[in-house]
Amino acid sequence: MDILMPVKFEDGKLVWLDVTRLPYEEVWVSSDDIERIARAIERLEIRGAPAIGVAAALALAVVASKSTGSRDDLLRNLETASQRLSRTRPTAVNLFWALKRVMNGVYELIGRGASVDEIRSFVIQEALRIQKEDLEANMMIGKHGQELIEDGDVILTHCNTGSLATSGFGTALGVIRYAWMQGKRIRVIATETRPLLQGARLTVWELMRDGIPVKLVTDNAVGYLMYRGMVSKVIVGADRILRTGHVANKIGTYMIALAAKRHGIPFYVAAPTSTIDPETRVEDLVIEERNPEEVKNILGRLLITRQDVEAINPAFDITPPDLVSAIITEKGIARPPYEKSLQEILKS
Amino acid sequence: MDILMPVKFEDGKLVWLDVTRLPYEEVWVSSDDIERIARAIERLEIRGAPAIGVAAALALAVVASKSTGSRDDLLRNLETASQRLSRTRPTAVNLFWALKRVMNGVYELIGRGASVDEIRSFVIQEALRIQKEDLEANMMIGKHGQELIEDGDVILTHCNTGSLATSGFGTALGVIRYAWMQGKRIRVIATETRPLLQGARLTVWELMRDGIPVKLVTDNAVGYLMYRGMVSKVIVGADRILRTGHVANKIGTYMIALAAKRHGIPFYVAAPTSTIDPETRVEDLVIEERNPEEVKNILGRLLITRQDVEAINPAFDITPPDLVSAIITEKGIARPPYEKSLQEILKS
Repeated sequence: MDILMPVKFEDGKLVWLDVTRLPYEEVWVSSDDIERIARAIERLEIRGAPAIGVAAALALAVVASKSTGSRDDLLRNLETASQRLSRTRPTAVNLFWALKRVMNGVYELIGRGASVDEIRSFVIQEALRIQKEDLEANMMIGKHGQELIEDGDVILTHCNTGSLATSGFGTALGVIRYAWMQGKRIRVIATETRPLLQGARLTVWELMRDGIPVKLVTDNAVGYLMYRGMVSKVIVGADRILRTGHVANKIGTYMIALAAKRHGIPFYVAAPTSTIDPETRVEDLVIEERNPEEVKNILGRLLITRQDVEAINPAFDITPPDLVSAIITEKGIARPPYEKSLQEILKS
Repeated sequence: MDILMPVKFEDGKLVWLDVTRLPYEEVWVSSDDIERIARAIERLEIRGAPAIGVAAALALAVVASKSTGSRDDLLRNLETASQRLSRTRPTAVNLFWALKRVMNGVYELIGRGASVDEIRSFVIQEALRIQKEDLEANMMIGKHGQELIEDGDVILTHCNTGSLATSGFGTALGVIRYAWMQGKRIRVIATETRPLLQGARLTVWELMRDGIPVKLVTDNAVGYLMYRGMVSKVIVGADRILRTGHVANKIGTYMIALAAKRHGIPFYVAAPTSTIDPETRVEDLVIEERNPEEVKNILGRLLITRQDVEAINPAFDITPPDLVSAIITEKGIARPPYEKSLQEILKS
């Protein structure tokens, strides 16, 4: 099984697989223009919290390798790029985390009087480290998570949390992939994940590419499948995990968690520790409201309702901790109460 | 508010609104050709169990008013039409019920030596009575149900249960319509209802036509809207209600009911007593599994996944009685325990 990496830094440019074109065609885009890269994140050509973080860091590497002026020019270019990138997706904690990590390093080097070449080199190396660390974290998430998976499991997953959402390998899908690589005979049920259909378009594509058995369902069929005993476990990713164990993830996650609870089915969340936000309180969590056209006009190709109707399009929902059986990170598995277990994981 | 009647008998012809063209265009079709009418039912130009029953009865009225020959000619024409119509939707109970009701009356009249004019007149009148009775039942469901609706309510509904599914007015949508006509300032949230999008296509169209405020959401956003306090009541229809109060309805209903329960939001079911099945046990309830293409290829127009993936496509799910706050029928409102209250309603 080769590991697909959807975002790369190559010859001073960012190269990415435009996932909006999947499953119809596999199109790789290459650019060294920050505005183009920012739009790629906004347009979800690059999506999935970890992939966005990696892309943002690598975008700063693009800026660094392109910047030929003074140290001040480089700093100004990095700051402008960082500000533009941070306006792309408000809920994605990894985005801010990655930008901050690179920029903090830059400020520290400047404070120490580093040269423009040293700073340029640092930005590129630090971005590549973020990418490498994410890939390693995913492998570790998979390794820890596969302990929860049994031979014969039918695992339901939502949205896309695979190679296409990360630096590679995936989080929730990484657990599935790891278990499969261990020889566990599992089957996957993928929800289509309206409005943008990441499950139907991307998860199905990834799993079939790897030869892992998968069936597609509409989001609203999950309860019935559980009622009929057709699901043994749920694994989803996370866009943000609060100190209390509240999980912000793709819209629809909460309803799946409610159904899993009703039927006593384990509900697991798989995410790197960079997704854990120990500061924001659940009352203060901002949920991105996206363009209603995504609901009304499927993939911008098929209008399914009256053009003049209002639509509500929250991108994420919040799953409270009492519905979450465990949180799988690269540092180990956290169990309730999360206030305690997540603290321990973060400290370890 | 004029009541939209999607199927009518006018000047010896059947006139219907082709709902497959909604919401793109409002096309009324008129025909006195039984083959054309039968194809309209097969192609879902006319859909919704009550609407199909009414259409079949009115189609016999078309045959009667067109038939200018002898009494034997009329009988032969009615029987040929009845046989053709009964082959359109093999599982639609209302279709057989309506055809049988008209034809039984015809045979009884023939047994009594009625004239061709008397039989012709009976068929037309009986068909119009079937239509009128369905409309009156819907109005009564609306009248009873509106007592549960308060000024300012935000009511979430699933699928289409309106004029377009019945002789007119609707069941769950009839309750909303009645409350609106009473001057209650309500707002509606319509779920799109994958896979066939009856909510997005038909419910939105109907409500906007009547000027009732409506917003569209994906099915998987319902939990989040409830979490945010944006829904005060749920009303859905039913395809079948068991003695125990188990409700078989459009796929997705069960997950809405689970979310409503979690948030203490009343979950109402509106349906005529003809929907109550006092005999089938929940273990024996057969849920129709429909063509996977409906999931993979939206409205037959937009392929959203790999063509070769398997999909699961149950048409209905089962909501257990502990999640149902009340069942609204034309004879009154049943409350838990349903084993008792539904019996009383059926006897009344």
